[in-house]
Amino acid sequence: MQPIPDQFRDLMGAQVATLATVGPNGRPQQSLVWFLADGDQVRLSLNTSRQKTANLTGNPSCSLVIVDPANPYRYLEIRGAARVEADPDYTFADKVGGKYGADLRQHDAPGESRVVVTVPAERVRAVDMSA
Amino acid sequence: MQPIPDQFRDLMGAQVATLATVGPNGRPQQSLVWFLADGDQVRLSLNTSRQKTANLTGNPSCSLVIVDPANPYRYLEIRGAARVEADPDYTFADKVGGKYGADLRQHDAPGESRVVVTVPAERVRAVDMSA
Repeated sequence: MQPIPDQFRDLMGAQVATLATVGPNGRPQQSLVWFLADGDQVRLSLNTSRQKTANLTGNPSCSLVIVDPANPYRYLEIRGAARVEADPDYTFADKVGGKYGADLRQHDAPGESRVVVTVPAERVRAVDMSA
Repeated sequence: MQPIPDQFRDLMGAQVATLATVGPNGRPQQSLVWFLADGDQVRLSLNTSRQKTANLTGNPSCSLVIVDPANPYRYLEIRGAARVEADPDYTFADKVGGKYGADLRQHDAPGESRVVVTVPAERVRAVDMSA
C-alpha cells in the first residue's frame, strides 16, 4: 500500500472520479463515478448490470483518477485490485447517497442490485503538472 | 467508427483528456494528457519514455475521457486502437504546443523523443448524468 500524500488528500473529498477497468478482450473502459473515501481506500456503489462491474468481477485491477475541480492539471491516480461485495439492502449505497443527497435506488431498474467496490491504494501517483 | 454527437462536439476543444491504457500485466493505467481533435480522431504527442507509450505499443486498445470543465457530469468517452508513429522532428508536437502556448521540447530530457498517437473513435459514449 502507498499513502495518499497529505498535500493531495483534499482530492479524496471531490465529487467524481474516473474509473478505468479492463474488459475480457483486454480493452480498457472508463467512466465517471461517485465515490466515498475511506482512509486510503476508495469505495464505490456500482449497479451489477454495468459493464464496469462485470469487468471488475473478471479482472479486479483498476485505476481511479480524481482531478482537482479548480485545477485540471492537479490529480491523483490510485491503482489497486478491487474487492467486490454484495450490497443487497443498499446499506453502503445509502452512505454514498448521503454524500450526494441522492437515493441510489432511483438509478436502478427493477431486478438490478448493487455491489460495494473497494479499491485499496496499492499504487498512488500524485501529479501537479501546473507546479 | 462512430461519430461524435453534435451536442458533445464542444468537448473536443477542451484542455485535457484522461487516457487509459493497459500494461503487459493486464492492469489499467490512467493519466491526464493534452490532445488535439482531428475530426472524429483524437491525437496526442507522447514522450517515448513514458509507461503509457510503452503500454500502447504493446496493446493499442485505449480509452479517452473528456469532461466538460463546466459540468463534471457531462463527458465523452472515446475508445479505439491507437496508431503510434514517430515524430522525430517535433512536427506534430509543435502543433500541440500551438494549442497550449508551450514548447514540448522543454518537457523532454536529452535523448528522449516523441510519437504521434492517433485514436480513432471506434466507440463513443456521450454521457450527461446531470440531464
